[in-house]
Order: sequence, then structure tokens, then C-alpha cells
Amino acid sequence: MIAVSAYAAPSAGAPLERTTIERRPVGEHDVLIEIKYVGICHTDIHHVRDDWGRGGFPLVPGHEIAGTVAEVGPGVTKYRSGDRVGVGCMVDSCRQCENCRNGLEVYCTGGGFVGTYADSERYTDGSPTQGGYSTYIVVDERFVLRIPDALSLEQAAPLLCAGITTYSPLRHWNAGPGKKVAVIGLGGLGHLGVKFAHALGAEVTVLSQSLHKQEDGLRLGADHYYATSDAKTFQELAGTFDLILNTVSASLDGDAYLSLLRTDGTLVYLGVPEKPVSANIASLMLGRKSIASSGIGGIPETQEMLDFAAAHGVGADVEVIGAEQIEEAYDRVARSDVRYRFVIDNSTI
Amino acid sequence: MIAVSAYAAPSAGAPLERTTIERRPVGEHDVLIEIKYVGICHTDIHHVRDDWGRGGFPLVPGHEIAGTVAEVGPGVTKYRSGDRVGVGCMVDSCRQCENCRNGLEVYCTGGGFVGTYADSERYTDGSPTQGGYSTYIVVDERFVLRIPDALSLEQAAPLLCAGITTYSPLRHWNAGPGKKVAVIGLGGLGHLGVKFAHALGAEVTVLSQSLHKQEDGLRLGADHYYATSDAKTFQELAGTFDLILNTVSASLDGDAYLSLLRTDGTLVYLGVPEKPVSANIASLMLGRKSIASSGIGGIPETQEMLDFAAAHGVGADVEVIGAEQIEEAYDRVARSDVRYRFVIDNSTI
Repeated sequence: MIAVSAYAAPSAGAPLERTTIERRPVGEHDVLIEIKYVGICHTDIHHVRDDWGRGGFPLVPGHEIAGTVAEVGPGVTKYRSGDRVGVGCMVDSCRQCENCRNGLEVYCTGGGFVGTYADSERYTDGSPTQGGYSTYIVVDERFVLRIPDALSLEQAAPLLCAGITTYSPLRHWNAGPGKKVAVIGLGGLGHLGVKFAHALGAEVTVLSQSLHKQEDGLRLGADHYYATSDAKTFQELAGTFDLILNTVSASLDGDAYLSLLRTDGTLVYLGVPEKPVSANIASLMLGRKSIASSGIGGIPETQEMLDFAAAHGVGADVEVIGAEQIEEAYDRVARSDVRYRFVIDNSTI
Repeated sequence: MIAVSAYAAPSAGAPLERTTIERRPVGEHDVLIEIKYVGICHTDIHHVRDDWGRGGFPLVPGHEIAGTVAEVGPGVTKYRSGDRVGVGCMVDSCRQCENCRNGLEVYCTGGGFVGTYADSERYTDGSPTQGGYSTYIVVDERFVLRIPDALSLEQAAPLLCAGITTYSPLRHWNAGPGKKVAVIGLGGLGHLGVKFAHALGAEVTVLSQSLHKQEDGLRLGADHYYATSDAKTFQELAGTFDLILNTVSASLDGDAYLSLLRTDGTLVYLGVPEKPVSANIASLMLGRKSIASSGIGGIPETQEMLDFAAAHGVGADVEVIGAEQIEEAYDRVARSDVRYRFVIDNSTI
């Protein structure tokens, strides 16, 4: 086994502390990655605070991983030492179901994908998976992404979760030239949603509670910026959008947002609100509208996203911190006080 | 004006009674239709009983109209006397918005389509529209459909609402060979949903509360028939369907039905439940699933549906009644005691 430094939550809600964990030996198809940066995703906080009751403590969070290849197993063909690589929310899946065979590992029907942390290895030793708040990780090459040279590792890290979570629905629901896309919320996900939608050629509108971040939104690529606290917004924008990406977890008035869609438009939930989504059928029927949700993306699409990001200069806006600032960062994330993603410099772990 | 016989509800909830109403004179682009048959849609009952508070009394219901052309205006080019024609839920729309220009009049954004009854004429005299429980109707040729010779008029009538309401979502969501389609409920809509889905080449499953109508369902074209009162149904069919058409108005457990969809599947509500639809985001996210709804169809698609129905021998299963049986029929519709659509023989009006 390989002993590596990490930051772990020893128990539910406890502050993260420096510790040592073990990674499995580098197997036939494994890649040993020296992690340079890891993004802080709101999901990390939910897990550490055990909001969803999934346990798994001691728990090393982190699924926005960027680094370099330190070693490869003898059967590895895609990567070699020194390559710039990333790992996102998955480190494995069943590999055999139709979705896995089609590169939609995120929708694996053979038991679901193996999460980068708070899950169990499937094809190795069944041990708990541990995330990227650590110095090294061992991952099968199938679940390792290549980070193009044009992307800095710290800006690339958040693309592995926040980036693909917005890129995938934009692609799936055909955001592009001639399409009007709205992004609800300008946070970690939202700011990348704006960048990607803009880079894909869509006309982009930010729908935020206030105009507080308007300047930022326009700088990031939005064409328009509206405050949802202003009832006039809903009148003015009625029937406007082909696609609305909801990146916030707070419960929304589904009918109000559906009224902003044009015929055949789709309202996609990317955050996970505590309450079920709800809407009147008339809000869907009058315009053949849809409510949908999507997860991250499959491995091929995640690679496509990274390549697209590199080609279009899309990276996350990050605030790099040392590991000793994790607790402070968590508090700031919880109150949306970050523009727009904290990234841990793993050399401080 | 043209005086014609009709059955009207004089006030909310009152029994329908024979009366005389006036139709506008045949205008430049108008078609005077002698109505031979009119289907009884559950919507008629809601309107007559004023369940939705829309008023419009005295009210002549009926928007599943089949008959022959008695006279045409001088500017009419599509029809001539004697042609077999139908009228559905719309008799006009704004004609100018993008949807109207694209043949999606059902989603008219210029004020919505003009309903065949309980609405107001837009381009003529603004008078209340009155439906097909009458001997004649005058309709602009744009909103008149041709009924192919291969379809009997009584079997064609219900296609104008129940038929297009199921055909349109089947087409929109690509039901066809290789696709698995479920139809919830085997009533007026459901039995046509089964017929059309089968004729389109999909593998069709009926999801009904009981196995009561199983023999019928299989005769109508279903490949499988399951009782939703049996919890095993939901285990056995998990992850099965590309498309589920919900034709019932009762509130459903959205999460349970979403679990029956495969990746990228869509649950389409065609009935209008009293309560909002509700689902947990996880039920949508784990498989990139959608909840949607659609209305009838535009005029071009309604014509396509009639032509398809004629080519594939799809007509409604009807029970023809005389006008004096309307009240009895309403009671039987309310308790789902009809296989599968009542059609009034308008010669009895």
C-alpha cells in the first residue's frame, strides 16, 4: 500500500484534520496521480457534515482533482509519467451495462458509478474510496482525464465536477447559436454555466436573486443579467428561453420559471433541493415544456469538455487556499462568499 | 346568421337540453360543415359542470367533430361540398406568431388558440364559440381537417382530440421501432395511445390499475399489460421505458413512474391532475430523465395523424349514442364505463 497525506473528517461534522491514508498499490491499469489542486465542491461539505446520512468516516472529500501522473501500471496505454491529468466524481463503474459501454458511466445501471469518495472500490479490494484532499490518488486509467496544456491545473480542477455538470446539459439540450439560455444562480456551477453557454454560442442570461454580481456576470460572458427578486423580471422574460439551467439548491417556484421558457423549452435542475420539485401540468402543457435533471457527464464527454474548455479559454475563476483554510472556506461556501471556486493547493497538505 | 339545432347546458351543472343556436354566415374562407358525429370528451363534462370556473353558458360542448362539407365560402381552396372533414379543439389562433406560422397553433403565443367552444371568435364577430353537439358549424378552412375515406366518420371523430393528444407526443418523443412505450390508463386517450404507439412500431405496455381490461389492451396492440396495484410491477419494469404517456388525471407517484424510465426517458402527462406534479430531483438526475406535458397538436400534425390513422387502420373504438343519452353517457364516462369513446349521432340532435 502507499501511505499518503490527506485531510479527513474523522466523524460527521468534525473539522477536517491532517492524517495519513493508504492508497492501493498501482495495478495493471492504474495511474498514480500526484494531486496538485483540488476544488471544494458544496457536495464535499454535505458529505463532511453528513447531511445526506451517507456516513463513510473518516472521510477524505474532494472530487475536482488536477495533477500529474507519477507512475503508471504496466497495462496503461493512455498516460505516462508527467502527463497532466484530472479525476472527477467517478473512479469506476460496472463497465458492462449499456450506459457504461456507451460512455455514460455517470448513468451506470449496473449498480451506479463508484464515487471518488464516500463509496467502495468495485474491481479492486472493495475498500472505501477516499477523495482528492490528499497528495496522491490511484485511479484506473479509464476514469482519468487528460488536462490540455492550455488549462492551468488550478483552473481545470473545478471543471471536473462543476464544469462538466453544466457543460453536459448545455450539450445535451443543444445550447448553441440561436439559442437563448438562462443560468439561475452565479456560483461555482453558475459561473461555469455562463462561460460554457457563451462559448457554445448561445445568448446567455443570468437570473440571480439580486444584481449584486451583475458586473461579474457580464464579464464572464452573460449577455443579460436580471434580478429574480424583481417581479418585473418574470413579466419581461416570459416565453424567452430554450433552456434554463438551475444551479441553485434552494427551492424555486417551478411554475414561475417554466413561464420563462419558450415552446419546447426545458428547465434543468442541477442543484439538489431538499424538497421535491413541483409544477402545475398547465405550466408544462402550454408550450410542451419539460422539467429535467442531469448528473455530471460520462468520461468521453468530460474529456470533450476539457478539450473544449482549453480551445475556448474556459477555466474556473478560483481562489487558491492552503489546506489549513479549509474550514474557513467551507463557511464561506455555505454563505456563497466565493468567486467562484475554492481550490486547495495540495502541496500544503 | 344560420340557425342550427344543438344540445346546450343552460347553466353550470344543468343537464344539456335541445336548443337552437346561431352560426355566423359563411365567410370568404369559411366552411359550413354538417356534423355527422361528435365525440364526448371528458373535457366536455368538466366544462358543462364548470369544474374549471370558465363559464360560457349557455354552452354547447363538443370538439371531436366529424362531418361533411355543406357549403364553402368563395375564397376556400382546400375543400368543396361533400368532402369528409373534421374539426378538433381549435377553430382559430392568432395566425401570426412564430408557432402559428410553424403549424404549432396549439401553442399560439399570440393569445392562445381559440377553443372550439367556451371561447370567443377572434377574427370574425367576437361571439362565443359553440361546439359540436349541434347539426352544423362554420369554421375557417385553416382549422378544418380532411378525413380520409378509409376512416369511418364515427371512428374518426375522437381522433380530433383524443387521437392527436396521444399521437403528437408519440411523434415528438420519437416512439417507433426499438422504443419501449408505456401508456398509463386504458380509457379514451389510452386506447388510442396504444393503437398509435403500436402502429408506429414501438413495443407497447399498458400500465393499468388492474388487469380488468387486459384482453382489450392486447387486442388493441399492447405487447404487455401490467397492474400498477401490484408492487411487483414497479420492480419488474424498473428502467424499462423510453417514454411513458400518462393518460389519467388522478395524481400519481411521480417518483415511482420515473423509476420505470430508462436513461433519457420522458414521462409525459396528458391528463390534467388537480394537484401539481411532484418528483424528487434524484429521480430525474439518475438517468437524465424528464417530466413533460403536451397539448393536442398543430393543424399540420393533426392532418398527418388522420392520414396515418387511415393508412394503418387506426380508429377509435366507439359506442354511438343518440343525443337523448348524453346525460347517461356523462355519468358512465365519469366512472370510466365506456370502451372507449362515446360518439353522438348528430342526426338525433
